[in-house]
Amino acid sequence: MNDIHPSRRRRERGSRERILAAATDLFTTQGINATGMEQLSTVAEVSKRTLYTHFRSKDELVLAYLQALQRDALPVSGAPDEPLLDPREQLLSIFDAMPRDTTVPIRGCQFLNASVEVPDPEHSAHQFAAAYKREFARRLANIARQAGISDAETLGEQLALLYDGVAARGTALNSSDTSACARSIAEVLVDAALAGARPESSRT
Amino acid sequence: MNDIHPSRRRRERGSRERILAAATDLFTTQGINATGMEQLSTVAEVSKRTLYTHFRSKDELVLAYLQALQRDALPVSGAPDEPLLDPREQLLSIFDAMPRDTTVPIRGCQFLNASVEVPDPEHSAHQFAAAYKREFARRLANIARQAGISDAETLGEQLALLYDGVAARGTALNSSDTSACARSIAEVLVDAALAGARPESSRT
Repeated sequence: MNDIHPSRRRRERGSRERILAAATDLFTTQGINATGMEQLSTVAEVSKRTLYTHFRSKDELVLAYLQALQRDALPVSGAPDEPLLDPREQLLSIFDAMPRDTTVPIRGCQFLNASVEVPDPEHSAHQFAAAYKREFARRLANIARQAGISDAETLGEQLALLYDGVAARGTALNSSDTSACARSIAEVLVDAALAGARPESSRT
Repeated sequence: MNDIHPSRRRRERGSRERILAAATDLFTTQGINATGMEQLSTVAEVSKRTLYTHFRSKDELVLAYLQALQRDALPVSGAPDEPLLDPREQLLSIFDAMPRDTTVPIRGCQFLNASVEVPDPEHSAHQFAAAYKREFARRLANIARQAGISDAETLGEQLALLYDGVAARGTALNSSDTSACARSIAEVLVDAALAGARPESSRT
């Protein structure tokens, strides 16, 4: 049923991975619209023909880039039966400043950046970025709910908004100092919410 | 000393204004990198030659676009001798949701968007956007200081970060609901800061 020679399949899988790696690098650092298919094929070391075999259009590649990012980027667990060691720290950890390479500009959140570069809200990339951003807030709300916080949705949305502020302002100022500013606000919100939370024994 | 005929000067001033209006519209709605000089000259109804007479490069036009925006966009006064009617409302008013045309996508903050589209922190557009973002926080801090708030810089930076969160998240979700979320956080911060502020009579 499969008449492709194993070595050819291996080579093709390698091409796809190289294309995605090149897209991730170039879309992140120089932007989606500043990156052409020509440059992508050069950096990925594949022909234009091979590039279009794997991704029929740039839109398809942009979507695959965001999908691959999502697999690595959602920092909080949504599994409802996972033990929460310290919900407070889990919620606040999204504001831990990343170790920074000061030789490259800060590029914030690639999902936010994609929504700026692809303005049409109906476009697959914009839709995917929006869904990711909602899922991010939902996962924070899950942690808050498991910690007994009553209005967990509001807290999740507030923390997600702060996170987006860090990413956007950090990109503009090319600074990671915005994380500490957001964390100080988040501590106020989380501590107030935890103070009003139901004690662990009374949770269903 | 001025050998340009008045009608020609008038026409040229008209061209420059049309170019800037076209740039503001296109850069805002479809993005800086998605907009070429060809389309700009078409929409502004000027020849490419006239376009390049007024702006020697696209970079120069992008900078002029941001400069023109700044003149209209800084929402808070930095004049130290201006009477403050209600500092609380003045600080919170940046989170008032704009009246929205639901037929066009939300595009958040054009300065943030420029910093995403022009990644190089040394580029004139990125530098201008960063300076604008710092000035925005500084003006909020000025209001806070005049209201007797001791750590006015921190509050200014916090509110500016929330504002950027509204803009970035609102763009991704294509929603203006993020304003109310940010305002609820800002109220907590502003009220706590005002509660610890020096009374008006003791201010220098």
